[in-house]
Amino acid sequence: MNNYGESNGDSNVHEKQVEGHDHCENGDGSDNRVILGIDGGTTSTVCVCIPLFSSLKSLPIPPPILGRAVSGCSNHNSVGETAARDTLEEVMAEALSKSGSDWSAVHAVCLGVSGVNHPTDQERILNWLREIFPSHVKLYVQNDAVAALASGTMGKLHGCVLIAGTGCISYGFAEDGREARASGAGPVLGDWGSGYGIAAKALTAVIRAHDGRGPQTMLTNKILTALGLSSPDELIGWTYADPSWARIAALVPEVVSCAEACDQVATKILVDAVQDLALSVKAVVQRLHLCGEDFFLADGNGSFPVVMVGGVLEANRTWDIGKEVIKCIQEQFPGAHPIRPQVEPAVGAALLAWNFLMTESTENSHS
Amino acid sequence: MNNYGESNGDSNVHEKQVEGHDHCENGDGSDNRVILGIDGGTTSTVCVCIPLFSSLKSLPIPPPILGRAVSGCSNHNSVGETAARDTLEEVMAEALSKSGSDWSAVHAVCLGVSGVNHPTDQERILNWLREIFPSHVKLYVQNDAVAALASGTMGKLHGCVLIAGTGCISYGFAEDGREARASGAGPVLGDWGSGYGIAAKALTAVIRAHDGRGPQTMLTNKILTALGLSSPDELIGWTYADPSWARIAALVPEVVSCAEACDQVATKILVDAVQDLALSVKAVVQRLHLCGEDFFLADGNGSFPVVMVGGVLEANRTWDIGKEVIKCIQEQFPGAHPIRPQVEPAVGAALLAWNFLMTESTENSHS
Repeated sequence: MNNYGESNGDSNVHEKQVEGHDHCENGDGSDNRVILGIDGGTTSTVCVCIPLFSSLKSLPIPPPILGRAVSGCSNHNSVGETAARDTLEEVMAEALSKSGSDWSAVHAVCLGVSGVNHPTDQERILNWLREIFPSHVKLYVQNDAVAALASGTMGKLHGCVLIAGTGCISYGFAEDGREARASGAGPVLGDWGSGYGIAAKALTAVIRAHDGRGPQTMLTNKILTALGLSSPDELIGWTYADPSWARIAALVPEVVSCAEACDQVATKILVDAVQDLALSVKAVVQRLHLCGEDFFLADGNGSFPVVMVGGVLEANRTWDIGKEVIKCIQEQFPGAHPIRPQVEPAVGAALLAWNFLMTESTENSHS
Repeated sequence: MNNYGESNGDSNVHEKQVEGHDHCENGDGSDNRVILGIDGGTTSTVCVCIPLFSSLKSLPIPPPILGRAVSGCSNHNSVGETAARDTLEEVMAEALSKSGSDWSAVHAVCLGVSGVNHPTDQERILNWLREIFPSHVKLYVQNDAVAALASGTMGKLHGCVLIAGTGCISYGFAEDGREARASGAGPVLGDWGSGYGIAAKALTAVIRAHDGRGPQTMLTNKILTALGLSSPDELIGWTYADPSWARIAALVPEVVSCAEACDQVATKILVDAVQDLALSVKAVVQRLHLCGEDFFLADGNGSFPVVMVGGVLEANRTWDIGKEVIKCIQEQFPGAHPIRPQVEPAVGAALLAWNFLMTESTENSHS
């Protein structure tokens, strides 16, 4: 794995002689140094390479992507530490190679990765990166929700992100650096606004209609047709055969279709999901007082961004879950300002690294 | 596996020469022939051997148990067909051996087994038994809920059983043989009154209180203490580490304790579970018109048994889920008559076989 750069004897460290390195100014405020941004999800890992710009003024929005690479899963909970580390090293090497760059040009790395719930997770993953890079390279490890937030705020950690795909999570930062999250605990622990949650409730409604516990619903025909089944009884075997969350969450479009056709059961499921998702954001906003300074009311009119990410919020259907969530949040917090990111989370991670670097350099110049 | 009896050339068949067999009358209405009743669950399989009594009048209640054996899982969905079949054959051989009996004395077998949701499941398992026994032996295969019903009604298939342990199911039979079930579809499909459902809602409440989405609750301290954890954040890792339903359902006593101490969140979880469980029974009662003959009202005062089985209903606590469920059912159906079985489900299965035999012999004598 160490054929990309010089070595200082430790075969895992891609060494660079920082002090003697030639940082050619490119005339646009960047030099030959680069930042790697990585979005490490459960299904895939994306790495982008962007140039290092030396000042806020010189950073173009969106930033130019020098190289981009995609690899498999880098969630250590899913594939184990060795495989996760190998995947990360591979995807970074490929992004660098596509950029016409190499390990020695790397100035900072930010990895947003799922499964980072504790400082110990963060520390462990930082240690892997530390083994790959020499000590002058700035390394940042965050929950993947933080990179998603940065993809909407262009690297600034302020406001709240709501992700609703197969799972869901809300994650926010106050200007003073305080952070808070809500949801994101998985289906056993009640992430009911997630794609999995919506689809599981729809499947439940079909079973309840079938066994006499609930009202008849269009969901029955819609879902049975989508799955190629002939009776609700067969849903039991279908769910037991493979209870993967993504397979169940894939039924969300059927639920939306039924709600668009005014089916009451499907509509109630979506309305409840909207309430759950909005509540996740509201809880974060209140804990961080993102809406303003009134500590007790916590319902000020202060403006703050709400970055909206994930298939459940981006479906762009007539029954628009994302729009309804924003409406619900704004009823309590009129200053909530929705943002649909124009760049992918890996770019968010790169911008986050750049933002951390700027903050540190400002702090250093003041100290 | 074929060292217990004679063989007719097929090494899997435990042969008996019925016509020439000597049925010694024992003076109590039984002869040397036996019935095997089997309760095949997901965690264990129980087989009991009872004597064959020749008439309704001579059957003592409860019946004498000649032998009893316990083995592992016989749910083919969990362990595969070969292992399930081997387990069944082993547990029957042991029960027969403990009875001082052998395969040749077996007159009928009734297996109540989890995972029987379709006629095809029933047919497949009947075929296994058919390979073990010669053709004159009467074989019956039922969902394990049916054996549980029979354990309360002493073999008569009439009324409704409600099982609420780790999972939950309601299953009923009308006098004319029509049957219906509700729930029993697993947690993905919304069995919220089950032990798993109750405990998952309690864990969700702890997470919601922690991240600001829900009210504070005693459940937090109670559950964290029970699990030896120090923060609700750690619940995420705890559930991901092993999402087995039984491990989560084991937290039900903590929820009951909090409800007994008047915690509102815990109380609401139990009240909702009571409603869900009662609804499962009501749906079956209505579909089968167990309460009487009025097809349209379906709320007659006719008496019918409701057999109550499983840890959630039998906990015998101050906050008594089972009693509350019955109260809720009786509000709509005053004729619902609760029964707590005095015998185990395997004995229910044996009584069911005996009941089937009596019915068939009556039908034959009338034809």
